[in-house]
Amino acid sequence: MELSAKQIAELIQGEVVGNPDVTINNVSKIEDGKPGTISFLSNPKYTQYIYQTKASVVIVNNTFEPEKKVSATMIRVPDAYSAVAKLMQMYLDSKPRKTGVEQPSFVSETAIIGDFPYIGAFAYIGENVKIGNNVSIYPNTYIGDNVTIGDNNILYAGVKIYHNCVVGDNCILHAGAVVGSDGFGFAPDENNEYTKIPQLGNVVIEDNCEIGANTALDRATMGSTVLKKGVKLDNFVQIAHNVEIGENTVIAAMSGVAGSTVIGKNCMFGGHAGVVGHLTVADGVKMGAYTGIASSVKKEGAVMRGTPAFEARAFTRSWISLKSLPDLVKEVRVLKQEIKKLKGEE
Amino acid sequence: MELSAKQIAELIQGEVVGNPDVTINNVSKIEDGKPGTISFLSNPKYTQYIYQTKASVVIVNNTFEPEKKVSATMIRVPDAYSAVAKLMQMYLDSKPRKTGVEQPSFVSETAIIGDFPYIGAFAYIGENVKIGNNVSIYPNTYIGDNVTIGDNNILYAGVKIYHNCVVGDNCILHAGAVVGSDGFGFAPDENNEYTKIPQLGNVVIEDNCEIGANTALDRATMGSTVLKKGVKLDNFVQIAHNVEIGENTVIAAMSGVAGSTVIGKNCMFGGHAGVVGHLTVADGVKMGAYTGIASSVKKEGAVMRGTPAFEARAFTRSWISLKSLPDLVKEVRVLKQEIKKLKGEE
Amino acid sequence: MELSAKQIAELIQGEVVGNPDVTINNVSKIEDGKPGTISFLSNPKYTQYIYQTKASVVIVNNTFEPEKKVSATMIRVPDAYSAVAKLMQMYLDSKPRKTGVEQPSFVSETAIIGDFPYIGAFAYIGENVKIGNNVSIYPNTYIGDNVTIGDNNILYAGVKIYHNCVVGDNCILHAGAVVGSDGFGFAPDENNEYTKIPQLGNVVIEDNCEIGANTALDRATMGSTVLKKGVKLDNFVQIAHNVEIGENTVIAAMSGVAGSTVIGKNCMFGGHAGVVGHLTVADGVKMGAYTGIASSVKKEGAVMRGTPAFEARAFTRSWISLKSLPDLVKEVRVLKQEIKKLKGEE
Repeated sequence: MELSAKQIAELIQGEVVGNPDVTINNVSKIEDGKPGTISFLSNPKYTQYIYQTKASVVIVNNTFEPEKKVSATMIRVPDAYSAVAKLMQMYLDSKPRKTGVEQPSFVSETAIIGDFPYIGAFAYIGENVKIGNNVSIYPNTYIGDNVTIGDNNILYAGVKIYHNCVVGDNCILHAGAVVGSDGFGFAPDENNEYTKIPQLGNVVIEDNCEIGANTALDRATMGSTVLKKGVKLDNFVQIAHNVEIGENTVIAAMSGVAGSTVIGKNCMFGGHAGVVGHLTVADGVKMGAYTGIASSVKKEGAVMRGTPAFEARAFTRSWISLKSLPDLVKEVRVLKQEIKKLKGEE
Repeated sequence: MELSAKQIAELIQGEVVGNPDVTINNVSKIEDGKPGTISFLSNPKYTQYIYQTKASVVIVNNTFEPEKKVSATMIRVPDAYSAVAKLMQMYLDSKPRKTGVEQPSFVSETAIIGDFPYIGAFAYIGENVKIGNNVSIYPNTYIGDNVTIGDNNILYAGVKIYHNCVVGDNCILHAGAVVGSDGFGFAPDENNEYTKIPQLGNVVIEDNCEIGANTALDRATMGSTVLKKGVKLDNFVQIAHNVEIGENTVIAAMSGVAGSTVIGKNCMFGGHAGVVGHLTVADGVKMGAYTGIASSVKKEGAVMRGTPAFEARAFTRSWISLKSLPDLVKEVRVLKQEIKKLKGEE
Repeated sequence: MELSAKQIAELIQGEVVGNPDVTINNVSKIEDGKPGTISFLSNPKYTQYIYQTKASVVIVNNTFEPEKKVSATMIRVPDAYSAVAKLMQMYLDSKPRKTGVEQPSFVSETAIIGDFPYIGAFAYIGENVKIGNNVSIYPNTYIGDNVTIGDNNILYAGVKIYHNCVVGDNCILHAGAVVGSDGFGFAPDENNEYTKIPQLGNVVIEDNCEIGANTALDRATMGSTVLKKGVKLDNFVQIAHNVEIGENTVIAAMSGVAGSTVIGKNCMFGGHAGVVGHLTVADGVKMGAYTGIASSVKKEGAVMRGTPAFEARAFTRSWISLKSLPDLVKEVRVLKQEIKKLKGEE
């Protein structure tokens, strides 16, 4: 698919600066842009590369003011990152989606499957499963009994969904993701042995969620573990039983939320972050990497850091002080001596 | 299945307070209890809800003394949590277990399989595998050559057990768990390239263990990596080669134990905890979330915190002091000035 | 296979100390060595065991000088650990490798597969896949369209490789590993909803890499996520989109590298370590467990610790000071009082 800068500008409603007739047929990163490709500049860290890139076209933010000559044709838009996303999505959408049912696969007689499915070989679809339209189920995927899945979902290879769970519309579940495994609940007895607490609830994933590779969502003890609309989970995210994650909250890799905690909407978790069980976290809270939330966060939009966490700017000040703490210890020792002298003790 | 409060009280040997004839046919969480359901109160954080719940029956601890009117029928027991577990297990046990062998599946001719198996489609059972009675093997599961599995085990979808490993009785392995992958062992050469150390041992999982979704247990270099009886591992737990985990130790999600370390019995790991290789950890040691044990813990029942870890109460005091460290730095600066003045230097 | 100490010494070019005719037919750990087995001593922590071991033969470093009588026959070599690795590898290589194609499996008509493959049941090989010689593909493995895989690779059960990815020669991918899942990229809109950034690139794994169980490597947004030659990743390692990991870098379990970061060669990550996105880390950098790198590390061979990380020795000093920080706070309070007194204020 060959497109001119002018055609692209129309697609993403941008303004061309430079030669509108130059054509591209692929994308590239700005730091290793090649002729005949389109690239973009969004993160200011990469600004230096726009003056050297060999990409033919670069999408930039409206606010970008070049300080030197840019040889590529630029397309100016309000938000370069979104414009590129839109363009790449158009490219993906122009490609035909796999459809049909590969053999051997296992589809229970009581399963109801919508129009235009793709069901890969070795996929397993249990009893009374309901699947909407335009759903792609890649090979080696397991869908347990009584699961309900909406329209336009993609389940990549090896996804496992336990019985009774529910997935909305327009979700993507990456390879190896597990939905509905038992919550981690045990009651200790007098011999320090553990009795399993059966986990009778399920997991409900609302519309427009994305679940990373090998991520795991445990089913509720009773009721549901819930991902609200638009939640995005990276790889290796652990969502424990009875957790609720609010709308459009984004959780980076290796983060976990312990049992029965309720996370607000529009929160952001850095990597390796975690929240203890039975807490609430307000809307818009941001947690840096390795942040461990040990008590409820009530302030909307709070930025947290450290383990156990406190407010991020205070944490940063403390951490900087920690670096010079050994010096402080020495200074105090010197002061002690001086005071002794002043008191005439030495 | 409809049961009266009186019938339930008999099942769990509790005492009814209120109407013994009210009936339930489902369970619910106390905070959103519905008429016709049974709920429970164990964690004191939820005490407030017992005065409002619409659940018909609530199981409570003997020691619970209501401060207001409770409209639900209460059943008093020594340990509400255990009683609920027992009740839920009875409910689960009343449901028929899947049995039979779905097709296509792959069962090696040399495999020996006990009575009443469930073998899901696309399950793979290798050469000389021995499987006990009442074992459920869900779809897309892989059992390598020479694996031995006892009675009453559940292997959920996509479990992978490498050759020569051993699983006892009454274990549950959740979806995506891996047992017996190679330990991470390499010998560097003079060019900083690595030669793989072959991993010739296996993994032995004793009776009554539970292994979380996508958890991984590496096989030993020589000998066995061992989970003793009653060990419970949450999701994403990493057990490295030649590790031994003592009886009834419980490890929360995203925790890891590095190679050749021996963990005592009845230990508890919070989430994201970790122990360095070649250490020993005494019985009953507790580690908070994100605790990183960097040297052996010899004191039984020690409570550890921080990375590198020290005793939890000391850690908490230090961490609180860290919050005000920037203030301390300022105070010391002031003291310095004052001493200079006292010394007549300013 | 029965071998004498003398025969083994010839295989690994070592020098026999003791009876050269004693024979072994198995390996054991030095701490529970059995007659008729060979063991080794490399980590000095285990030195005590050589005086008690019942192993018939022990491989030791040239530099080892016994302080007491050693009853086992010793074989002295420059590097005991490497020698054992070599020996164990010889043992493994003496065993026949599985070959052939088990049924049912799914091999696309357009796939090209080299000589001597092992393709397990329920393995899926997509369109235009190219696979080299002597490749083992265990059951329930998924290889997406247009994937290229070199010679002598082992893909254990349940590995999932997305479309367009590339694997070199002599690699091992452990069970449940995911290669080529979408990078975690979203552009927020004015309503705090997220638009997915399509991930059009791939993953390239060069020769001699090993990928741990359930580890995940995300495909690049554009271009490639790259593991250079000889990279070793443990279980649960997260490699984000557009990351590049340098030659012979070794990453322990539960560590992660965020998007677009470039890691040098010969680096070492302890467990639970992490690096923020868009950074560079110099060659030979070592990170302790739980190290969180928050800014680029330019110094080759730097040793880092803490989150956010600083130089390891400085971190250790600070952390030791942190333990006594509550005492320091008290001391400063006392000094304040004394100064007040000296000033005549009290």
